[in-house]
Amino acid sequence: MAGDLEAWEAQLPAVPQAVANYVTFRRSGALAFTSGVGPLVGGEVLHPGKVGQDVSVEQGREAARVAALLALSILKEGLGSLSKISQALQMVVYVASAEGFTDQPKVADGATDLLVEVLGRRGRPTRAAVGVYELPLGIPVELALVVEVTD
Amino acid sequence: MAGDLEAWEAQLPAVPQAVANYVTFRRSGALAFTSGVGPLVGGEVLHPGKVGQDVSVEQGREAARVAALLALSILKEGLGSLSKISQALQMVVYVASAEGFTDQPKVADGATDLLVEVLGRRGRPTRAAVGVYELPLGIPVELALVVEVTD
Amino acid sequence: MAGDLEAWEAQLPAVPQAVANYVTFRRSGALAFTSGVGPLVGGEVLHPGKVGQDVSVEQGREAARVAALLALSILKEGLGSLSKISQALQMVVYVASAEGFTDQPKVADGATDLLVEVLGRRGRPTRAAVGVYELPLGIPVELALVVEVTD
Repeated sequence: MAGDLEAWEAQLPAVPQAVANYVTFRRSGALAFTSGVGPLVGGEVLHPGKVGQDVSVEQGREAARVAALLALSILKEGLGSLSKISQALQMVVYVASAEGFTDQPKVADGATDLLVEVLGRRGRPTRAAVGVYELPLGIPVELALVVEVTD
Repeated sequence: MAGDLEAWEAQLPAVPQAVANYVTFRRSGALAFTSGVGPLVGGEVLHPGKVGQDVSVEQGREAARVAALLALSILKEGLGSLSKISQALQMVVYVASAEGFTDQPKVADGATDLLVEVLGRRGRPTRAAVGVYELPLGIPVELALVVEVTD
Repeated sequence: MAGDLEAWEAQLPAVPQAVANYVTFRRSGALAFTSGVGPLVGGEVLHPGKVGQDVSVEQGREAARVAALLALSILKEGLGSLSKISQALQMVVYVASAEGFTDQPKVADGATDLLVEVLGRRGRPTRAAVGVYELPLGIPVELALVVEVTD
């Protein structure tokens, strides 16, 4: 439930590590950025493959939810507390898509529903959801988030 | 013609509604963000399919123009007036592309040409145009816009 | 080597020109944006095609490095000096990918490694790397960069 931020913070997954020469978090003034994150659980890809073929919409949605949790764990570590997020500004959701699969918004809802659960209405970002051809490591979804921070 | 903003505002299409759990507009300080928007006209997709196959470059360009108009209608509603836009900063244009289609910039020009028609030189954003595999609802193009706002 | 900015500036490639109705650089307050840039050398595409098929990972990485150099040349021209970049904030790397190619991060490393060579640790951005279906002109990689600027 929105508002119960400490309970959410206690159950966030471990912060994902950058797999290459970049950082997972940057802040500039009132803006904070996360890197692209995918649904990795204990080092394993959750539901690998393309949605609409290897991965069902429901699995894709679950993967998007896990990726959003990881994005929040990045922000928690970078900011100290999720309570510093005054609003979610922008989320781009890349869905690895089989030919003819056009339900990317249903997949992306797994991510934005989670943001709203955790942050309430201010967790609702602008959003672009697109169907890409391949994603790193075979993840079914990758998302990047920009939020507004208030100290 | 640039400058005649009230005339443009009067003919903007209805503001698109978010089709899921997100918002179409966010503002943080001097920045305003739109969600990804596609060419929906009266609830119907204009020129559905992939450019270079089902959709011609000219049709793709028209679709990009309509999407840009919808982005402006979002900004008009969010800001009160398009005159508050001091410059367009960033546009990402995702073009649903058939194999071998590499003229994404020609499609994206439909969007940026419209921005320049409405806003003049300050309407010219930085732009990335890429060819994706599938887009929501079968739209041929999706774009997201970030602008600078001055009160 | 990081810090030796003047030496880097002296060897930057010519600033790429926008191929359509957009600009390659925008600044708003502490933020600077580049357009999407690909590996064009003397008007020719370096390593055209899809990584994992026509283009090897090593060639893709080289292409990403060249694109990042072009992004820096845009920032040098727009800001006057690379020394005004206080940190790299966000890089999106679009890799034209063959079916089954999921090593986009290795390709994208060519770009972020270069940023770190030139700018040191502050050159490390958040990063999203995704595999798209087609890119303009057949470029194998396109990237867009957002940095923080301090006067």
